[in-house]
Amino acid sequence: VKTLADLGERAAIRRIANILTKAPGSIGIGDDCAAIDIGNDYLLVTTDMIYKKTHIVPQMTPYQMGWFLVAINLSDIAAKGGTPLGLVLSFGFPKKTSASFLTELCMGADACAGTYTTTVVGGDIKEMNEITLCGTAFGIVKKNELMSRFGTKPGDVVAVTGRLGKAGAGYYAIKHHSSQKKLFKVFLEPTPQIKAGKLLAKQHFVTSSMDISDGLSASLYQLQELNNVGFEIQQDFLPLASELKFIMKKKYPIDPYSLALHFGGDYELLVTMPAESIGRAQKILKLNGIDLTTIGIVTKKKNIILLKNNKKNILKNKGYEHFKKHHF
Amino acid sequence: VKTLADLGERAAIRRIANILTKAPGSIGIGDDCAAIDIGNDYLLVTTDMIYKKTHIVPQMTPYQMGWFLVAINLSDIAAKGGTPLGLVLSFGFPKKTSASFLTELCMGADACAGTYTTTVVGGDIKEMNEITLCGTAFGIVKKNELMSRFGTKPGDVVAVTGRLGKAGAGYYAIKHHSSQKKLFKVFLEPTPQIKAGKLLAKQHFVTSSMDISDGLSASLYQLQELNNVGFEIQQDFLPLASELKFIMKKKYPIDPYSLALHFGGDYELLVTMPAESIGRAQKILKLNGIDLTTIGIVTKKKNIILLKNNKKNILKNKGYEHFKKHHF
Repeated sequence: VKTLADLGERAAIRRIANILTKAPGSIGIGDDCAAIDIGNDYLLVTTDMIYKKTHIVPQMTPYQMGWFLVAINLSDIAAKGGTPLGLVLSFGFPKKTSASFLTELCMGADACAGTYTTTVVGGDIKEMNEITLCGTAFGIVKKNELMSRFGTKPGDVVAVTGRLGKAGAGYYAIKHHSSQKKLFKVFLEPTPQIKAGKLLAKQHFVTSSMDISDGLSASLYQLQELNNVGFEIQQDFLPLASELKFIMKKKYPIDPYSLALHFGGDYELLVTMPAESIGRAQKILKLNGIDLTTIGIVTKKKNIILLKNNKKNILKNKGYEHFKKHHF
Repeated sequence: VKTLADLGERAAIRRIANILTKAPGSIGIGDDCAAIDIGNDYLLVTTDMIYKKTHIVPQMTPYQMGWFLVAINLSDIAAKGGTPLGLVLSFGFPKKTSASFLTELCMGADACAGTYTTTVVGGDIKEMNEITLCGTAFGIVKKNELMSRFGTKPGDVVAVTGRLGKAGAGYYAIKHHSSQKKLFKVFLEPTPQIKAGKLLAKQHFVTSSMDISDGLSASLYQLQELNNVGFEIQQDFLPLASELKFIMKKKYPIDPYSLALHFGGDYELLVTMPAESIGRAQKILKLNGIDLTTIGIVTKKKNIILLKNNKKNILKNKGYEHFKKHHF
């Protein structure tokens, strides 16, 4: 093992976790957010860096970059059931960056923060060769309401908020030069599930939770590894995004279910809970205009099965690499 | 005004401050840290991004990069009188980065955090073209103990912790191929003044405080602009670092006072307080092994004067650009 490419991301994260001293009473590496013990509450902190060359599609406007940077960080707070307290942003810009780029970027960041009743409270600006944007969000959650990635139990049901494949449909619309700006928007201006996270956290019945920024299959594989369980997912149960109709209508050589299963960027929540709680959870979210759909069950057997057309197949683990996040 | 280079950093920061919605009860843009109202305390948050090409000298080891990233963020917490709660780090690496680089980087970050009884609680790792490191530190301070950049009053004395010119001496030692590794260390492994900050904050007599990461002159100009005051600094009073003896002995064509005044990277605290409090402040810090040296006074007149050899000159504003931080 010589380079990080040889090591691989998972092993790199394990290496980091082994080196770093653990904070007493705190939860951190391997989850969406770090959770620091501050008495009755956890302070939640999460950070995410994006970089023009590898993480930003050319069609993304500066406003959308600002929105996106704030949204992806708030999504991690949402997954833990937290209430956002604020964000700090670090910007690296080439000298030739236009002043209006900065203005629009800040407007997008401010608009997204404001939508979730929080604010950007500070940051840092530096000269760099390429546009590099680092966001850190912090929030708060009562200790007994924290929803962790750890805790998935065999027999639990698996559910997702909202609809899947929105980002995938948006990506394909852009790739195939569609003029449907609405499709771009769902992809480029994701909506973190702050409300759903808080509502679920208050009920105390969620056994594990994470955001599915990396795609559903990648997220399921992460939960599987962390909790030493397996899943049986019913393809027919997946709540397909209405935006996928575009893909189906145009007959692109891509399976809409494949986008719903593997494409990152939907920023919905993936949660597990005892079967007897799902009805109540769905009712509470429904009252707030949020769908919660059962997509399968947690199994003792440690593989991940996709049931389609009454056939069982191993679900492939292929999150969309371009927007993949690698938390440690 | 077309590009950020036309706009200039100060104007860029003002532009950002004008766009962003302000959080009620919180202090933010223009200070070392954002301070978020969480009841009896402020949550302090600061972020800083470094980038191999422009912010890291080639002689810096991966361990030192990790130390440095943590230290510069903790220094901002120190300047507000805060107690660190933790840090999150975002790393961007090229694929070819060695696995041992990651190990040493994390060891340096962990060692610096541990020295100040805090921990790295999480982060993010991404593939990028160039090594890019973003750190975010968070801490806590009682509301009535927060030391802000705002509050400098005419008649106050101006003081600095520790000694100045350490980083400048280290930089020159590296530049002139010295073999004195001790000199590199003071430059490449700075020591945030957490203890000094906390001790001063508890006394409630500091009227304004900031870290002098950008160099003393740049820091004085920032306080001057924020507080609409002036300064009279006595060159003879400046506490020169013993490391500057190297420069003086070798007779490099550089004035040691110039390094003490203008070179960034010392990470000491610059504070102002009423004249009657300085004796007590010095005594308290001395008991903890920390020097606090009066270097001048705050004036009503809005310029910054350097007194040397009984002559008054306007102090030039020339912080070391390479390591300059641009907070907004």
